[in-house]
Amino acid sequence: MKVIVLGGDGFCGWPTSLHLSDLGDEVIIVDNLSRRFIDIELELESLTPIAPIGTRLAAWKEVSGKTIRYVRLDLANEYDRLLALLSEERPDAIVHFAEQRSAPYSMKSPKAKRYTVGNNVSGTHNLLCALVESGVKAHLVHLGTMGVYGYGWSGSAPIPEGYLEVQVDTPDGQLKREILHPANPGSVYHMTKTLDQLMFAFYTKNDRIRVTDLHQGIVWGTQTAQTQMDVRLINRFDYDGDYGTVLNRFLVQAVLNYPLTVHGTGGQTRAFIHIRDTVRCIEIALKTPPEVGDKPKIFNQVTESYKVRDLAKLVAETTGCEVKNVPNPRLEADENDLVVENKQFLSLGLNPTTLSEGLLAEVQDIARRYSSRVDLSKIPATSAWRSGGSGA
Amino acid sequence: MKVIVLGGDGFCGWPTSLHLSDLGDEVIIVDNLSRRFIDIELELESLTPIAPIGTRLAAWKEVSGKTIRYVRLDLANEYDRLLALLSEERPDAIVHFAEQRSAPYSMKSPKAKRYTVGNNVSGTHNLLCALVESGVKAHLVHLGTMGVYGYGWSGSAPIPEGYLEVQVDTPDGQLKREILHPANPGSVYHMTKTLDQLMFAFYTKNDRIRVTDLHQGIVWGTQTAQTQMDVRLINRFDYDGDYGTVLNRFLVQAVLNYPLTVHGTGGQTRAFIHIRDTVRCIEIALKTPPEVGDKPKIFNQVTESYKVRDLAKLVAETTGCEVKNVPNPRLEADENDLVVENKQFLSLGLNPTTLSEGLLAEVQDIARRYSSRVDLSKIPATSAWRSGGSGA
Repeated sequence: MKVIVLGGDGFCGWPTSLHLSDLGDEVIIVDNLSRRFIDIELELESLTPIAPIGTRLAAWKEVSGKTIRYVRLDLANEYDRLLALLSEERPDAIVHFAEQRSAPYSMKSPKAKRYTVGNNVSGTHNLLCALVESGVKAHLVHLGTMGVYGYGWSGSAPIPEGYLEVQVDTPDGQLKREILHPANPGSVYHMTKTLDQLMFAFYTKNDRIRVTDLHQGIVWGTQTAQTQMDVRLINRFDYDGDYGTVLNRFLVQAVLNYPLTVHGTGGQTRAFIHIRDTVRCIEIALKTPPEVGDKPKIFNQVTESYKVRDLAKLVAETTGCEVKNVPNPRLEADENDLVVENKQFLSLGLNPTTLSEGLLAEVQDIARRYSSRVDLSKIPATSAWRSGGSGA
Repeated sequence: MKVIVLGGDGFCGWPTSLHLSDLGDEVIIVDNLSRRFIDIELELESLTPIAPIGTRLAAWKEVSGKTIRYVRLDLANEYDRLLALLSEERPDAIVHFAEQRSAPYSMKSPKAKRYTVGNNVSGTHNLLCALVESGVKAHLVHLGTMGVYGYGWSGSAPIPEGYLEVQVDTPDGQLKREILHPANPGSVYHMTKTLDQLMFAFYTKNDRIRVTDLHQGIVWGTQTAQTQMDVRLINRFDYDGDYGTVLNRFLVQAVLNYPLTVHGTGGQTRAFIHIRDTVRCIEIALKTPPEVGDKPKIFNQVTESYKVRDLAKLVAETTGCEVKNVPNPRLEADENDLVVENKQFLSLGLNPTTLSEGLLAEVQDIARRYSSRVDLSKIPATSAWRSGGSGA
C-alpha cells in the first residue's frame, strides 16, 4: 500500500516510515523539518547524533534496497502543494505525525502557544479539507494523546478507548448515550489534540472520511529493528526540559551521576509505550481501518502505567543513582491513579516491550554511549504553565 | 465601563455597540470590515442601505452626543497590534462577535472552510493569548451558537445551558459528573464554535480568564431603539442564500409575492431571538460576569422555538403569500423537536419580543420599504454540504 507519513522525519515518524517500508509499503515522507528548526531555536541537539534526512534515506536504500521518497512541505501553510501532492499520489493511507508535540514547549511563550495552535489545528484542518477536495479516499491515521482525557476524571473506572457510555436523565426516563470522552487537556499542546477530535468527528460525519485516532502515552526507547541497522538511521533522543520525556531525563541524569529530578511528589501516574510498539501499533491501525461512514476509530496506544516516583526508583535501581524531589512547573495533580483500557491493540496482536525488560538497553546503548554529548544546562524544565510561575 | 466590541460593525456587533454606548459605557469598536468584503465577494448587498462605519459613528455622535471609537484590526492576523491595543486600553470587558458566522458560507468551498477555521479559531486563540500576555483582566463575552449542541441529542430533555449532568458506571458504583454538553456541529462554522468552547475551558482553568459564552439561536429583526434613531444608523438585513436567515428569506419572498421556499418538509425546529433581545442579553451578561477561576459561564441566548414550516405559515398569514417545499441543501434531519432551557436570562430580567408581536414591523418597515433593492437571484441557497450535492 502507498502511505504518506506526515512528520516522517520526527521521533515517531522516522521509525514508523522505516518499519512500513520494511514491510513492503511504498512510503513517502512529508516533513517541513520543523523539529530540527526547534532544536536550533532551543540551542540543543538530540543526544543521539541524527543524520540529515537525505543521508537517512540514502542509508536506508543502502541497507534495505528500498526507496523512501521525501517531500518538504509545510502542512499548515502550503495548502495548494498539499492538495497537488494528494491528487497526484493518491495514497491509500496517511499517517499524521505532523503536530508540535511538546506540552512544555506549547506553554513556553505566547509565540509558542500560537505556533502550536496554528500548526496543529490549521495543519490538520488543511489535511481534512484537501482529502475532501481531492476526493482521495485515504485512511487517515492520526497520532492523538492520552492527554485528551485528563487524569482521574472518572475515579476508579479505566479510561475507555475514546468513547464513554453515559446515562442522562430525561422526562421520559434515563437515556444511554455513547459520547466522545469529555476533554480535559493540561496544556495548549494537549488542547490542540482535543480540537482535532472534534474536527475528525465532523469530517467523518459530513464527508465520510475514514479516521483512526491513536491516543498515545509517553513514548520511551530510541531504537527499532530498522533504526539500529546503521548508525545513520539512528532515531532522536530528547532529554531537555521541553521535549525530553521524564524517562529520558532520568536516564541522562543517571549516567552522569546526577540525582533524578522528580516534579512534586512524583505521584503522577502516566501511561507508557516503547517506540517499537508504536510502530507496530501504526502497522495494526493501517491494517484495520474503519468503514466509510464510521465515526473515528479510537485506540489507546499505551502498554503500561507507572507513577513517576516508581519510574525514578526503577532507573535508580538499574543505575545506582539518587532521587531528588523538585517543585513542579506544571499545573497538574501531584497524585493520580490511572487505569487505561488498551484491549483493542492487544487483541490485534500487539506484544508489548515492558520497561523492566527494555530499560537496561536504553541505559547502555543510548544514554551511556552518547553521554559525552549531554548539555546539562538543558535538563531543567523552564516553561511555566501560568505567568508568575508554577502552582495549581 | 470600558468595552471593546470585536466585530462591532456587523449585524449583532453594531446594535450592541450602540446599545452599550447609549447605556453610558465607553465603547471601542474593533473590526476588519470582513463582512463588507464578503458582500463584495458574493456580489450582493444588505437589503437595508448600511452606511460606512465612519458615517455611522458620526451619525451616532450627532444624535446621541456620544463617541464610539473605531480601530480597524484583523484579530486572526495582527496579534501584535491586538496585544498593544489591550495593553493600552485595558478594557473592563470584551464582547467577541468577530467570527465568520454563516454556516452555508463555511461550506461553500475549501477556501471558505479554511478561512472560517483560520479566522475563528486563530482569532479567538489570539485573543485568549493576548489577554494572558497583557495581564488585562477583562471579562470576555463570546457569541457562541445553539448549533454546538446539535439537535435532538437527548430526546425529550430540554437542551441545558452549556453543561449536562451525566452518570457514569464505575467499579465503585455510579458517578455523577457535570460535563460540557457533547458537541454535534452541523457545519464547519458550527464546528469552530465547538473548538472555541474547548479553548475557553482550557484558558479559564489554566489562566483564570473570565469567559461567558452565549449560545445564540437564529437572530431575527433588524432595528433596535438606537439603530432606528437615524437612517445612517440602520442595521444590516441579509436575505441571500448564505447569510440570510430563513425568516429574512421568507420576508423578502413574501413582499415580492414569491412563494416561501421551505427546505425539505420544514419540520426542522430552530430557536429564535430578536436583535433587540440580543443586545439586552449582552448587557445582562456584562453585568453578571463569572468569578475569577470559574469555568466558562454559558447562557442559551434564545427566546422561542419554531418549526420552519410554522414560521412560513406565520409569514404567509401576515402577508398573504404561498409556501413551496424545495430540496434541502444541508445535511440535517428534516424533522426534529427542540426544547431549550433559557431560564438564566429570563431570571435576570430579559423580557422577550415574540415573533407574533414583531413580525409585522419587519414586513412593513424593512422588507416592503426596501423591496426595490432585492436581487432575487441571490435568494436560493447554493452551498452544498457534501461534494456531489445534498442529501443526508
